[in-house]
Amino acid sequence: MRRCKATVEFDGGKYCGFQRQPDCDTIEDRINKALTDLLNEPIIITACSRTDSGVHAYGLVFHFDTSMESFPMERLPIALTSYLPSDIVLINAEWVKSDFHARYDVVDKTYEYKILLSARGSAFNYNRAYIYKHAIDVDIMRAAAKKLIGEHDFAAFMATGSGVKTTVRDIKSIELVENGNKISLFITANGFLYNMVRIIVGTLLDIARGHLSIDNIDLMLNSGNRAYGGGTAPAHGLYLVKVNY
Amino acid sequence: MRRCKATVEFDGGKYCGFQRQPDCDTIEDRINKALTDLLNEPIIITACSRTDSGVHAYGLVFHFDTSMESFPMERLPIALTSYLPSDIVLINAEWVKSDFHARYDVVDKTYEYKILLSARGSAFNYNRAYIYKHAIDVDIMRAAAKKLIGEHDFAAFMATGSGVKTTVRDIKSIELVENGNKISLFITANGFLYNMVRIIVGTLLDIARGHLSIDNIDLMLNSGNRAYGGGTAPAHGLYLVKVNY
Repeated sequence: MRRCKATVEFDGGKYCGFQRQPDCDTIEDRINKALTDLLNEPIIITACSRTDSGVHAYGLVFHFDTSMESFPMERLPIALTSYLPSDIVLINAEWVKSDFHARYDVVDKTYEYKILLSARGSAFNYNRAYIYKHAIDVDIMRAAAKKLIGEHDFAAFMATGSGVKTTVRDIKSIELVENGNKISLFITANGFLYNMVRIIVGTLLDIARGHLSIDNIDLMLNSGNRAYGGGTAPAHGLYLVKVNY
Repeated sequence: MRRCKATVEFDGGKYCGFQRQPDCDTIEDRINKALTDLLNEPIIITACSRTDSGVHAYGLVFHFDTSMESFPMERLPIALTSYLPSDIVLINAEWVKSDFHARYDVVDKTYEYKILLSARGSAFNYNRAYIYKHAIDVDIMRAAAKKLIGEHDFAAFMATGSGVKTTVRDIKSIELVENGNKISLFITANGFLYNMVRIIVGTLLDIARGHLSIDNIDLMLNSGNRAYGGGTAPAHGLYLVKVNY
């Protein structure tokens, strides 16, 4: 058996998220089936993380083991096109050492959250960005985002009901890129709590709109109280961009 | 009664084209219904042109008459958002003189055809660009495109079975824009024959790939024989960009 590391791009719009679940079409199921059919043996992948329904990816990483040890793995993306639906595309595959682990070996991950400022919507982006119809102050949004950089207890930026050992995470960078009426927030961290990016974006937008004070960021970080935060931005604006090992 | 001119953006992926037809979901039907519901009187729009199933638009223009003569028409795009599906978005509306006609008054139209060069596909563009997996020579493609500029008989660039008075059209400009693995062809003309842009693109790609000679453009223009041309590029790469009056 040899281990393969692969990177996949997908439009999550039609799926019940990444992770396998009963009676629902998931991206993981589609990839397992495509690899099983192509390699003609049962394949079950292990991913860097799960994604919620509607969330997209430019570069989600997974690994799997196969007995097809002479398969030209660099050609897997093209070989797999006829086995995968058009909205799931393998963009890279390579042989790795057998102790590589797509989840445990993650150093950091980068997410992008896309916002489109528009009162009338967008025929081409309605399910690929958060269409936001309120006026915002981007400078205040950027200043609020900067406060999140570094190692903090992000308990207030986590959906209730999540079971994790620690809510401390290290946000290595936050970058807000403005291009006309498009705003992208890029966040790189060593790990993310459940709904963390979406709560960050919802809170930053409420601050940028003037519905919350920029001081609420400090209140949230110091108290761990979700109630000081804003809404949870919708899943369809979120993209897993890159995973570093 | 007053006349309104409006501009609409749509993702044609889910519809049977623009024009009304029995037992099939069309963009025109959706707009007629939305306007009828909002203005509370029967509205039937007249469009600048029809589009085929799968074709998109950034700026298709139509007109309609209404007895709601004091309606603040500049607010129609926002008012209509809750009446239209998310993939059909009105981007402009204004009162015009009662003799304005969306089809007869057209001076020229601009189409964009999007090509994405990729052997493995694209999760986000598979139904919004022609995913082309063959290597092409963009310089030859550009040189071939230039031969089409001007007034010519484009009979060889028309799908068979079309009934038109004349097949002479004036292509005012063709621009080929290259950005990484993305290629866009912008074509402005005083009118377009049925499938004209898609046959132009299919032929240019066959020339750029080395399957046809650049001389085939001259043969097509001189003979009017479709058989000298290449394939018909798929509908989902085509966008109606702008209509000038």
